[in-house]
Amino acid sequence: MAKKKPTILVVNDDGITAPGIKVLLEVMQEIGDVVVVAPDSPQSGMGHAITIGKPLRLDKIDLYEGVEMYKCSGTPVDCVKLSVNKIFKGKKPDLCVSGINHGLNYSINVLYSGTMSAAVEGAIEDIPSIGYSLDDFAHHADFSHTRSYVKTIAEQVLLNGLPKNTLLNVNFPNINKDIKGIKICRQANAKWFEEFDERLDPYEREYFWMTGKFQLNDRGEDTDAFALANGFVSIVPTQFDMTAHHAIPELNSWSFDDK
Amino acid sequence: MAKKKPTILVVNDDGITAPGIKVLLEVMQEIGDVVVVAPDSPQSGMGHAITIGKPLRLDKIDLYEGVEMYKCSGTPVDCVKLSVNKIFKGKKPDLCVSGINHGLNYSINVLYSGTMSAAVEGAIEDIPSIGYSLDDFAHHADFSHTRSYVKTIAEQVLLNGLPKNTLLNVNFPNINKDIKGIKICRQANAKWFEEFDERLDPYEREYFWMTGKFQLNDRGEDTDAFALANGFVSIVPTQFDMTAHHAIPELNSWSFDDK
Repeated sequence: MAKKKPTILVVNDDGITAPGIKVLLEVMQEIGDVVVVAPDSPQSGMGHAITIGKPLRLDKIDLYEGVEMYKCSGTPVDCVKLSVNKIFKGKKPDLCVSGINHGLNYSINVLYSGTMSAAVEGAIEDIPSIGYSLDDFAHHADFSHTRSYVKTIAEQVLLNGLPKNTLLNVNFPNINKDIKGIKICRQANAKWFEEFDERLDPYEREYFWMTGKFQLNDRGEDTDAFALANGFVSIVPTQFDMTAHHAIPELNSWSFDDK
Repeated sequence: MAKKKPTILVVNDDGITAPGIKVLLEVMQEIGDVVVVAPDSPQSGMGHAITIGKPLRLDKIDLYEGVEMYKCSGTPVDCVKLSVNKIFKGKKPDLCVSGINHGLNYSINVLYSGTMSAAVEGAIEDIPSIGYSLDDFAHHADFSHTRSYVKTIAEQVLLNGLPKNTLLNVNFPNINKDIKGIKICRQANAKWFEEFDERLDPYEREYFWMTGKFQLNDRGEDTDAFALANGFVSIVPTQFDMTAHHAIPELNSWSFDDK
């Protein structure tokens, strides 16, 4: 008897028409039965935002022949929540993949990224989940070198499963870098140093454009930043317990009595 | 010579007119020099979203006498980024406090919460940061029982400092619970079970309202959920390294060669 094909939920944050999600759904079609649910407009930088107090739309569309696809008016995380509840109706998919993002989501970017937050939400829903991102912001970025890796990593996750409450954050170097292989990494310690470009609107009122420089504060050779800089695909096993467990004893020594 | 008063940045996600931020800024005025920067509209559930590709507004307003206040068109995290850059101009405040949120932000809610994400952003900026939340969603929630705790916790943070890359997530029981004291906790393992109320708009098109039930999957007595249920103020030391460090050895044993 033929083995049942896995069902795969494909999401992203760049929106349903982004080339990156097309590559991802094509690769996933080689592995399983695909359902695509993605925002109807770009949602980069939406982090783990959800839509509260506003209604959501979810509409089936025929964008690519033979692919079950839905566009959603909400955030990437909304897409996952709506899919699980209204499309899969509680019968969860075997895999949730997010991306392929136009732009890296390594290091601290995992917090700001809608792509990664959708994958985190998949993991919260107990679905083995992977976020994929490429070091190229361009709309017409070349994803060709990522395909075999995207497939292998998804197959390995389906084969081995993932530890409880763990997902994968996969980042790819740009096409111009020779890929040397895969490295399992930790998230590099870094931050964005923002600058705000100050302008006047046609009514003489001030407004700001946010720009930023990425500041790597980590010389470790076991980080995603180091792996990517050296031509490797980085995989960071990712979790969502924000507790600083190591700080609990210190806080227990504080004196809170003076109230 | 008198000791210099600390400078304190006050932010929230419920918006600049929320009663919770008024309580917070009043308590902080007893401790230091306060600057308030908050969204011009409610931003609950915005998580760590930032505004990319759209301009931001930041306008000084006189809402409460003698308080330096600004309203911002962006997300809670945008408020922190804009404050550091355009108001404090790199001379960082001594403390960043967020809230007091109308509604709890314990357990998994830390991921969805704009209140907590603003505090996380403060910590990323290397500012000692605290998020405060109350178990009452009502606009006219009674915050009176939180004041002495809010002050003591802030004073302790100013006195002791916080471990590197660590902030505090403080949650208060409702006024109707006798507060028994403070407990240092870990984030409880839980998730939201969503339901989507399905309706038709006046044009006969389908839309959804998200509702959810909180599912606690954790019987530990060291969690924030347990502390709150038993009448304690919960403090979870919180960090933002999403790496699942424990999963790195297992992933290193996988076979990625078949590409």
